Amino acid sequence: MDKKIPMEKKVLSENDRLAQEIRERLRQNGVFALNLVSSPGAGKTSLLEKTLGALNDKIGIALIAGDVQTENDANRLIKAGGKVVRPIITGGACHLDANMVTKALAEIDLETVDILFIENVGNLVCPSSYDLGENMKVVLISTTEGDDKPLKYPAMFRRSSIMIINKIDLIGHSDFDLRHVRDNALSINPELKIFEISCRTGEGLESWFGWLLEMSKY
Amino acid sequence: MDKKIPMEKKVLSENDRLAQEIRERLRQNGVFALNLVSSPGAGKTSLLEKTLGALNDKIGIALIAGDVQTENDANRLIKAGGKVVRPIITGGACHLDANMVTKALAEIDLETVDILFIENVGNLVCPSSYDLGENMKVVLISTTEGDDKPLKYPAMFRRSSIMIINKIDLIGHSDFDLRHVRDNALSINPELKIFEISCRTGEGLESWFGWLLEMSKY
Repeated sequence: MDKKIPMEKKVLSENDRLAQEIRERLRQNGVFALNLVSSPGAGKTSLLEKTLGALNDKIGIALIAGDVQTENDANRLIKAGGKVVRPIITGGACHLDANMVTKALAEIDLETVDILFIENVGNLVCPSSYDLGENMKVVLISTTEGDDKPLKYPAMFRRSSIMIINKIDLIGHSDFDLRHVRDNALSINPELKIFEISCRTGEGLESWFGWLLEMSKY
Repeated sequence: MDKKIPMEKKVLSENDRLAQEIRERLRQNGVFALNLVSSPGAGKTSLLEKTLGALNDKIGIALIAGDVQTENDANRLIKAGGKVVRPIITGGACHLDANMVTKALAEIDLETVDILFIENVGNLVCPSSYDLGENMKVVLISTTEGDDKPLKYPAMFRRSSIMIINKIDLIGHSDFDLRHVRDNALSINPELKIFEISCRTGEGLESWFGWLLEMSKY
């Protein structure tokens, strides 16, 4: 596998160059961009559905929905009221990259956008290495996954600015301990801002919406 | 990214060569090997803990526990009675490969082993491409992840022989529909053998243990 490293470095440095171009373009247009990452099924699309329901009439929201296969997530977001939704099918790749995002952005009128959500492929490993030009990475973790995930996938939690703990309505149905997951995450990244929510019951979402409204003035 | 493909092909063909060597060595020693794959937190380690509890005195079990970081899983398996447990820390890589497994096997006396479990990194994408010399891939999916996963990560379900649906005790707490996940999985791979279990309540585990006992005679 050692032979692979120089090529990966080249790919990553080209990716970083493109990401900087994206970041500059978003900045010029006053767009605040979040790169959502998580395990499969942690609730990225559900969170975006709820966010559209609450904020779609208040601010301009664009969404890029990445998936290995199918446009299911993009279709869910359109159904939830998303006006600007661009699917990316990676066709096997385990993460989005800046090149894919550049192409998706070419079809979006950024002047109408306050917040751009980039929903990454469900994967706690690969997406951590690829800068997409976002302002912040947001890592979702669901209570049913166990409270050890920050220790087992440290790169993702180190590179994220926000951690959202979803499915708090299911606490008590597993050994998940909120205090443990907070301690584990903050031991990896003391700067993490943490939200605790349930997309199913709505608990905790108001504080997430309020934070997004603040950020949309960016 | 196109430039990366020839190098990846070379890496994969070298991996396949090593995997064949592993497969032949396991066959000569009468070892039946399962490569466990899933999202993070679907319950691979919990399933292995329960399996050790039930079968450890009946058959020879060896376990290779792969993780991006930490030896937590390996330690859990030792605590659960695992006599032969080898951790692999990939140090960032999103999957195990045949080279890592070859090194781990070098420290295992295969003559005492009936079944080898290889617990892969929690990831529904990358591990699908890497043959580890196993007899079968076993894909775990938990009910809290949603019933759309087979459609969204088809390669993994196509290359697996077994699908285990875990956390069936939590059905009813989400929109997960057992019939949907079965239909989705079988549309990708009509040959899949399916187990429905709860590691928490023990439901469905007897049938998994029984199947393993059959396979251990291999």
